[in-house]
Amino acid sequence: MQLSERITGITGGGSDGWDVFLKARRMIAQGVAVTELTIGEHDIRTAAPVLQEMHRTALGGHTGYAAVPGTDALRDRVAARVAARTGVATTRDNVLITPGGQAALFAAHMAVCDPGDIALYIDPYYATYPGTLRGAGAIPQVIGTHAEDAFQPRVEDIAPFAAKARSLLINTPNNPTGVVYSRATLEGIASLCIAEDMWLISDEVYDTQVWEGAHLSPRALPGMAERTLVVGSMSKSHAMTGSRCGWIIGPQDAIAHLTNLATHTTYGVPGFIQDASCFALAQGDAFEEEVAAPFRRRRALAQDIFAGQNIVGLVPAQGAMYLMLDMRATGMTGEAFAYDLLESHHIAVMPGESFGASATGHIRVAMTVADDVFAHALRTLLDHAALRSAERAAAQ
Amino acid sequence: MQLSERITGITGGGSDGWDVFLKARRMIAQGVAVTELTIGEHDIRTAAPVLQEMHRTALGGHTGYAAVPGTDALRDRVAARVAARTGVATTRDNVLITPGGQAALFAAHMAVCDPGDIALYIDPYYATYPGTLRGAGAIPQVIGTHAEDAFQPRVEDIAPFAAKARSLLINTPNNPTGVVYSRATLEGIASLCIAEDMWLISDEVYDTQVWEGAHLSPRALPGMAERTLVVGSMSKSHAMTGSRCGWIIGPQDAIAHLTNLATHTTYGVPGFIQDASCFALAQGDAFEEEVAAPFRRRRALAQDIFAGQNIVGLVPAQGAMYLMLDMRATGMTGEAFAYDLLESHHIAVMPGESFGASATGHIRVAMTVADDVFAHALRTLLDHAALRSAERAAAQ
Repeated sequence: MQLSERITGITGGGSDGWDVFLKARRMIAQGVAVTELTIGEHDIRTAAPVLQEMHRTALGGHTGYAAVPGTDALRDRVAARVAARTGVATTRDNVLITPGGQAALFAAHMAVCDPGDIALYIDPYYATYPGTLRGAGAIPQVIGTHAEDAFQPRVEDIAPFAAKARSLLINTPNNPTGVVYSRATLEGIASLCIAEDMWLISDEVYDTQVWEGAHLSPRALPGMAERTLVVGSMSKSHAMTGSRCGWIIGPQDAIAHLTNLATHTTYGVPGFIQDASCFALAQGDAFEEEVAAPFRRRRALAQDIFAGQNIVGLVPAQGAMYLMLDMRATGMTGEAFAYDLLESHHIAVMPGESFGASATGHIRVAMTVADDVFAHALRTLLDHAALRSAERAAAQ
Repeated sequence: MQLSERITGITGGGSDGWDVFLKARRMIAQGVAVTELTIGEHDIRTAAPVLQEMHRTALGGHTGYAAVPGTDALRDRVAARVAARTGVATTRDNVLITPGGQAALFAAHMAVCDPGDIALYIDPYYATYPGTLRGAGAIPQVIGTHAEDAFQPRVEDIAPFAAKARSLLINTPNNPTGVVYSRATLEGIASLCIAEDMWLISDEVYDTQVWEGAHLSPRALPGMAERTLVVGSMSKSHAMTGSRCGWIIGPQDAIAHLTNLATHTTYGVPGFIQDASCFALAQGDAFEEEVAAPFRRRRALAQDIFAGQNIVGLVPAQGAMYLMLDMRATGMTGEAFAYDLLESHHIAVMPGESFGASATGHIRVAMTVADDVFAHALRTLLDHAALRSAERAAAQ
């Protein structure tokens, strides 16, 4: 039976750059000890007190349908957090709780794009972005960035596409590059959105993981609260990836319609998970810093390891839980080096090409294993790159 | 800022028949003691052992991203249950776990309908159906049924629309009518689907609530496994409405594409909820019968109360947790009677008109309060209907 063109067309044909990842998983299944530096998932689990609260409220009877837009308590808590961090007046009417950040990304594009509308996104990008836009019926238009800018977007690269686009999707702090958009970048993007009457969808799920500078939410810029949908989540900030609890912050009218969409697509988020999220958010900044601390520490380890050499280029990781490494001195593509590293040393990383053409010749390393394992893997990676680079020099 | 036509068009304009429900909720908020017979939610909570298992596995570390199509264990368990109940060979590759039945309904239509495709559904219908189809970009086409058939669909009413349609959505046992589709009805529908190359989307979330006859899954009919997507859920069968755990059963190819859609729209279901669902399903038929027993009991109460009179017509409730009552002898619409009953006796029911034109002059009563409260409410309802009917006769 024929399926819809939409569903069969969500991902393009051919390799999507995840072959290395799948090969690593096969090796693990076969008993090989692989150091996995691939997926953006903490090496800690959700904290026991958060789970205890989830259980307490479930046993207490919060197991029926929760209100579709989210519980008042969680919406209020998220609104207060956003208001405190950004200075923008925010109430529960600006908040829709969603079953995770991915559901928020999809719903946000459903809300602003009709089938055939052009939706912009920035390369390198999180793997699901183009498929999410296609799933919502939009035509994805990619905007490249440049390794020499450390992947900070250039507004002049976006501008030529803005007039015909309905929306622009950005992600700061960024996965996979670690870039934190500067105020100048965000002000330029905001001006463009206002001039071209374009929605901004701002994925800020890494907003508690900033190692250099400060996170600025573009919703706080003048004229932007009315045209910005912010995507947030408990996943990265509170090590609750598996709880699937996220949100959209936006104008009241958009949230009302998004609630109606939620009634017809998900019908809300488990009440006991919302209660646990509320509890986790109430723990405040100290808890969030505790969750972020391992990545801050490992980034510093990496800066030490990669200092004083010019074979592997460490893209300044200003935020998020990944390192983007420039491997072009080896003469290899990111994918070729990733395969080589996996086969030679059983270390799995993601090819930069998995995240778009702009990161060709790069690899992404997730900082999601214990410090000693992480440091050892990076040293091995560097030695291997040095070997391949030397072989290349000898052959030339 | 302008939102998409899709999201603003999910529900039509004007009253959607939920005004009585909202009025009841306002009265409750003001402190009025209202007997609520509106929503399809059990008067029991999720069983403690199920929640204990959820907590055990969460504490055990199953708090990270679960596999997007569902855990192997739950997919296997659901597949085995479906195979045992229907006789159709079913493996995990035929199963996608979704965050609830509503998400499954939406995804199923995303999978088979492209924007502008015609999707059929049967009136009376569950409130979200037309909006779900519109949310997926399809053009909903309603097929009426007849009170004199106790709302069993007539294949000849569907046939004229089938040639141009991509899909037909059915629901048996049915909310709101309580009808269980007969073998003859389902065989007729199957022949039509095969003849017109139409997908069947079969919402079977009430499959453990059958009071008369037997539930037949149309996927088990010859030639139908390849063109049927079955929607199931833990909500009604295991009193786990708030856990948001459901599934789609379908051909392997469709499930593979639906998994890809899930990657871009929801990114899976919490692993600890899947583990709890697995545990609940492992309790077997006895547990499911225990959850269904109150509705079986209350249906029998209703049959006694409505026996030997001809003012309120009890549509034979063959399954599900609702009664559909024919109020036309009062000369009132379902909505007018529902308002009148709420104002006069603080009993809240749903107007039949909330579920489509076919149930005009009817009301839907959810069997979701304690037996004594339920019986008292029905007797009050009957007395009130008798009063209005007598007043009408006197005025004529």
